[in-house]
This record gives sequence, C-alpha cells and structure tokens, in this order.
Amino acid sequence: MIGHLLTARPTAPLRPNLRDKNPIMPPIPPSSYDVYFQNALDTLKQEARYRVFTEIERQTHLYPQALWHHADGPRPITLWCSNDYLGQGHHAAVIEAMVTAARKMGTGAGGTRNISGNHQPIVALEAELASLHGKEAALVFTSGYVANDTGISTLAKLIPDVVILSDAHNHNSMIEGVRRSGVERHIFRHNDLDHLESLLKAAGHRPKLIVFESVYSMDGDIGPIKDICDLADRYQAMTYIDEVHAVGLYGEHGAGVAEQDGVMHRLDVIEGTLGKAFGCLGGYLAGSAAMIDAVRSYAPGFIFTTALPPAIAEAALCSIRLVRQGQALRARHQAQVAKTKTRLKQADLPMLDTPTHIIPVMVGNADTCKAASDRLLTLHGIYIQPINYPTVPRGTERLRITPSPLHDEAQIEALGQALDEVWTHFNLPRQHAKVAAE
Amino acid sequence: MIGHLLTARPTAPLRPNLRDKNPIMPPIPPSSYDVYFQNALDTLKQEARYRVFTEIERQTHLYPQALWHHADGPRPITLWCSNDYLGQGHHAAVIEAMVTAARKMGTGAGGTRNISGNHQPIVALEAELASLHGKEAALVFTSGYVANDTGISTLAKLIPDVVILSDAHNHNSMIEGVRRSGVERHIFRHNDLDHLESLLKAAGHRPKLIVFESVYSMDGDIGPIKDICDLADRYQAMTYIDEVHAVGLYGEHGAGVAEQDGVMHRLDVIEGTLGKAFGCLGGYLAGSAAMIDAVRSYAPGFIFTTALPPAIAEAALCSIRLVRQGQALRARHQAQVAKTKTRLKQADLPMLDTPTHIIPVMVGNADTCKAASDRLLTLHGIYIQPINYPTVPRGTERLRITPSPLHDEAQIEALGQALDEVWTHFNLPRQHAKVAAE
Repeated sequence: MIGHLLTARPTAPLRPNLRDKNPIMPPIPPSSYDVYFQNALDTLKQEARYRVFTEIERQTHLYPQALWHHADGPRPITLWCSNDYLGQGHHAAVIEAMVTAARKMGTGAGGTRNISGNHQPIVALEAELASLHGKEAALVFTSGYVANDTGISTLAKLIPDVVILSDAHNHNSMIEGVRRSGVERHIFRHNDLDHLESLLKAAGHRPKLIVFESVYSMDGDIGPIKDICDLADRYQAMTYIDEVHAVGLYGEHGAGVAEQDGVMHRLDVIEGTLGKAFGCLGGYLAGSAAMIDAVRSYAPGFIFTTALPPAIAEAALCSIRLVRQGQALRARHQAQVAKTKTRLKQADLPMLDTPTHIIPVMVGNADTCKAASDRLLTLHGIYIQPINYPTVPRGTERLRITPSPLHDEAQIEALGQALDEVWTHFNLPRQHAKVAAE
Repeated sequence: MIGHLLTARPTAPLRPNLRDKNPIMPPIPPSSYDVYFQNALDTLKQEARYRVFTEIERQTHLYPQALWHHADGPRPITLWCSNDYLGQGHHAAVIEAMVTAARKMGTGAGGTRNISGNHQPIVALEAELASLHGKEAALVFTSGYVANDTGISTLAKLIPDVVILSDAHNHNSMIEGVRRSGVERHIFRHNDLDHLESLLKAAGHRPKLIVFESVYSMDGDIGPIKDICDLADRYQAMTYIDEVHAVGLYGEHGAGVAEQDGVMHRLDVIEGTLGKAFGCLGGYLAGSAAMIDAVRSYAPGFIFTTALPPAIAEAALCSIRLVRQGQALRARHQAQVAKTKTRLKQADLPMLDTPTHIIPVMVGNADTCKAASDRLLTLHGIYIQPINYPTVPRGTERLRITPSPLHDEAQIEALGQALDEVWTHFNLPRQHAKVAAE
C-alpha cells in the first residue's frame, strides 16, 4: 500500500559501522536505514503532499477560537475544521466530569480490561452506549479506528466462510479491518445498491457482512441505510455501519442517521466514536449481547491494550447524557451549518452540495490547497487544514469546513469574506464556472 | 488465527426474517448471525477460558487499595496486578496536570493530528520523549498497541525487500504489526542469539529489521539487548525494541533497560507506553528524525485517528518529568519487589525467578487459576487476575503479581499469607515439589 510510493531504492550495503562504541558520550547514530525514510519523505515533498501540522492550543471559554503557535509566538485564530462538532469537549459539565474522575480515580486505567483495567466508569459508559443505540450491549475501544480495525477483522474471522461487501468510500480503519480479516471481500461502488445487490447475489448461500458508513467524512454525503438493510434482509446479510460522523448530531437522541431514519434496530453492528461530537476520545461497537461478548473475547486490539482512563469514560458518559437530550443543540448546529452554506453560496464557492454538517470546498490541487489554507491562516486568522491524498483522491484536494453550534453569525461572515479574498487572490474556480463547465 | 477455534459451524440459511418492520416499537432483532458468536463463546467456556472482568474502582488516596464492585455492592480490596507500576496514575501532580489542562483546553483533541488535533501539549510531550530516550524525535500514538501495530508495519513497508526477524515471545501488538506488513518474516526462538544470527546470515544482503522486547510481560524476563545490537551491527540490521514494561522503571532516568545497560543509543527504534509506569494512556516511538517523520507521514494507524486529548498529554508530560528524576521511587519499587519475592519464597510458592518487577506464580491450569484468583478476591480481598490463554500458552496459566512502591510491608505479608492459604486449600504444587520433579 505504501511501498509503491518508493520509486528509488537506496543501494546496499545498508549500515556503515557508524555506531559509537563509547558508552560515556553516545551520539545519536546516523542510521543508514534513514536513507529509506528520507526517500519516502522526498516522494511526499515532490508530490506537494508532505504534511505540516498546525500547532494549536484550544481555549475552553473561547471556542471556536484558539491560539495558533507558530515561530513568532501564539496568535488567536478561529477553528473551522474541528471534528469536535458540537463543542462538547469544551462543555463545562463534561470538563468537570473529567476533573472529578481524575481526582477520585487517577489519570489512567492501569491495565487491560481483563487485568485490573475494568473500572466502573467504563462499564457504565458501555451501558449508556447500548441504551443510546437500542442495543443489548456495547464495547468501548481506544479509538474508533481500533473499533473498526479489530472489530471488523474479528467479526469476519468468527463467521466461517463469510464474504465481506465493503463500500468503496469506507474509511481507512474499515479498509484495514477488512484486509486484516483475510476473508474474501468485494468492494461495491459508493452507495451503489445495484452493485451491492449483484455482489450479494453472487455470494450465494455464504454468510455475508455488509460494511458501510452513514455520513462519509470527506464528501459529507449519506449512505442509503434503509435500502441497504432491505438488501441485507433479502440476501440474509449481516450489517455493520460506521456512524462516527453522525453520532451526537442526527436523530432525536443523537444516536445517528440510523435513528433519524428509523432503522437503527435493523442494523446488526453500529460503530461510533467518543472523539468527535461527544468531544472526548475512544470508539465503540453496539449490537447483540452475543456479538459484543464475542468481540470482547476474541479481538486482539481490544484484549491486549490498556483500557481508556476512568476520567475519559466519565467525561464521555456525561457528554452522551447531555447530547441525548440535546435537540436544541442539534437544531442550532444545523442552523449554523445552513447559514454557513448560504454565505459560501453567496461567494460562489465550489462547494459539494451535502445534506450534512460537512462542507467540502473543492480546490483540486495539492499545492494550491495548501497555499489557500496558509493564506486563510496567516492573513485571516482562519484555520482550515488542507485535505489532500491519501485522505481524498488526488485531484479532489479540498478545504473541509465544519461549522459548530458555537460559530456565530460574525464568524460565518468573516469566513465568507476570507474565502472570497483567497479565491480571488489565487484565481480559483467559482461554483458557477464549475457548473458551466459540466 | 481465531477461526480455528470454531469447531462446529452453524447450518445455513442464516437469517430468518425476524427483523421487525414496525418503526414504532422496534424490538432488538435476534440475529441468526448470533449463532456464530454464541458458538465462539461456547468454545471459550468449554475450555474454561471465558473471561469475566473484575469491576474495580480505584481511589487515588488509597492506592493500591481500591473498591471491588460486585453483586453485593462495593468492597475494599488490594490491587496486586496493576500495570500502573509506580502508582503514577494516582500522583497528585499528575492528576492536577490533567485537571488544569482539561479546564484550559477541554476534554478532547477534536481531530486527527493533521486536521486540527495537533495541540501544543502533545508536541511538548513528543519533545520530552525524544529527550528521555536520547533520540532526535518521538511520535505519540493512541496506545502502545497501535504504536507497534502501525509502527512496525509501516516501517517494514518503507524498506523495500526487508526481512523481519521477530522474537517468539513478542507481544500480540508486535505480531500483528509484523503480520500486517506483509513482508517476509522469521521468528527466532525467544532470546536465542544463535538462532537469530543464523536467520540474519540467511537473509544475506537484504535489509533486516530485528523486533524484540526488553522486559517480557508475562514471564518477567529480559532480552539480551547488547548482544542483539552487536548482531545488528555485524549483519547491518535495524533494531526495534519494545520497552513498555520497562520505561519509567529501569535506567538512571527511567528510560528503560536499554538505558540501564548503556545501549540506548544503539537502538534504532524504541517503543514505549504512557499507560503503565507513567500512569496515563498512549504509546510512542522514538528514533531518528527521518524515521519518525516517515512514520508520521505514512502510518495509517497514526494518520487516520483522533489525537490523544491535551489533558492526557499534559498528565503524561508531568509524569515523565517526575519519573526522570525518580531514582528514589525506582529504588523503593525494587525494594518492595524484592521483599515480595522473599515473602513468596518463604511460602514456597512456584514463582518464576525473574530479574524484574514482574512475579509470575505458576498454576498451570485454567480452572484452578481462576478458582485461586476468585478465592484470593472473595476470601482475602486480594485482586490478582488469572492469566490464561491466549495471553500465555496453555498449561502455563499463572497469577502475575506486580508490586508497586506503594505496597507496604503489611500488604506484602497479607499477600504471602493469602497465597499460602489458597495454595493449601487447592493443594497446589509448591516450589520445592516443582524443583524436585525437574
């Protein structure tokens, strides 16, 4: 997957005898293996997709404002690309839940879930998550990434002769989980029900696992959940949905798009995250008691790793309870998203027309995308990280904008003006030009 | 890996049409796929290795005492199996570092490192870790598991034609990383330098990556680090060491066994954890700037996941700084370990004779190991989780005891008496019997 990017291969022999044998003043040894790594980095730089992380310091009382730490010192900026979609990571009650738990139970779990790390808050958190999704049980992982990776691979290994059918736009963590399983898998074209059906049909009487998402992170579109459930029923397939960009945000209690669409009970496995709309860290699966117990018992990425700290679990628990009753917060979120879209349309920016809170503004070139992002940050104090390959396909580089309920009208107006200036400065294509060209 | 445990296969067809179509009162659908999961669970139960997690609530001011939550309510117990080896997760300064950061910066990072999640504390933490290990750079992951899994697989993919040589006792996370890489790999017998050398020789002029540990978690023994570095020099191999059970505990500044042995500068990659002796959560790699930058740029398990929260990073940073100057704490730790070993020897218990803080007391049978653990907990208020397959090989089931600097003489004495009683009750073999039989 990565190896093909290495165009040139350094010549052997590999390691000159540079290691210092003096135990008193050991210098850092220049390893000849670094040639490989330098080579890999050069490839990225040549392709203008070497990533420079923006160092920021969030400030609870000012969110979505934050400090940008750069060479000349800290500078106030406005965050427009956070996945803390509701600002729950800055909610006073969520913070105090973490503080209280840390003071009471410490900063770590001290072990795997099996070996001394099964603390009371994480047990309570799992009960809350099961309840949120109307399932018998839930299981918490270190991250949503790990939940997908070890979850999908373990489920597939426990179902003899299973075939996985996986949406082409699935997140890397799902792709890795599918690959790790080692079972037969087929990719269906994104949201293409006909293609999915033909693959289901072709799998005959074998067990089948359909793996897909509700909200796709980078395009901001939504999967046809009900239709996929209908196909699953017809072809007796098991369903696994990733709702990480939807939990907290959609449905009457924030359980996700499946709740909003009234089909949550039809999904066998719901995967979610505590690290986005719930403002904390961690991922989870929810489903039947037997399924969850089997993953708990067999998944290496769950068994052999330290449990999340009690302080994280308590913060997440508090956040979920607030968000379950957060209809007004979700309404405000959608209102600010709508206002942002309207303002960007006024500026004639080439947005993807999404039904969600994710607003991709297309640039289509890695260099320009980075330059636009840099100008937004340095000139306008607006932070929107450029999204490039491998997160999105080459040629679809973009700015991905995520309004929160805490972005106010003045900030939306400032965003619109700044993007307009940047688009003019770089002479980037506008939406009407894009439409005219189609 | 898991599939072979499924002895019987449920019969098709798989999914009766049980899904409720009523959107008003959706019941939890009994999925026919549950047959597979139930089957997998039955296998575990038949083999007496179905795991029941012990629900505990740690109490900062009383550590190593904690509360055990069971059917009849909470009950005070003493923890004897925590990997919070130094009790740093309960250190007042570490807790206050988390509290201050949570109040200042919130409970989450809000994004991946690239997309708005690169907060100031995690940058500072990486600088501290690089300094701790005398390396140019370090990179923090969600967990030590993820560091190994995505770290090893990514490094191997970036070195064309590499051969991995992996110690037979390596942790599951390293095994998964080696497997995921997809490259040619050979397992050398545990700590067997001759075997390793023969494999190095056989690999000829190809690049080679030696993957091993310093302290092996379950047997408590130590790898021959210097000898492995010598072989690496001779055969021009790159070295990757897992020090998760050693960082904080060994070496003048707690950088691990490699520091203690004066060979830290000879290792190309040092992997460690923030979740054990440092008392928090997370894992890391330390090494050359180019190597770290390449992993940062290519590792999917790093790129596509939410960053650790600022509050975790600040707590870890505080803990590391304390532990770097913690010579007295480490001395006290070793003293309590020595006293515990002496007391268990008095009781003639069948301990593995380890050079580390890990004290495995052998039982050799899954049922009895669980029963012994249960009796320790319910009768004596002593919590030592039974360790069974797949964490250790079948027939080597054990109690794994980890004294901390906070276990006092009275608690050590109580442990000795309790184990003595349990060994008598179940008529378990003593050390002298074991030696006599050999």
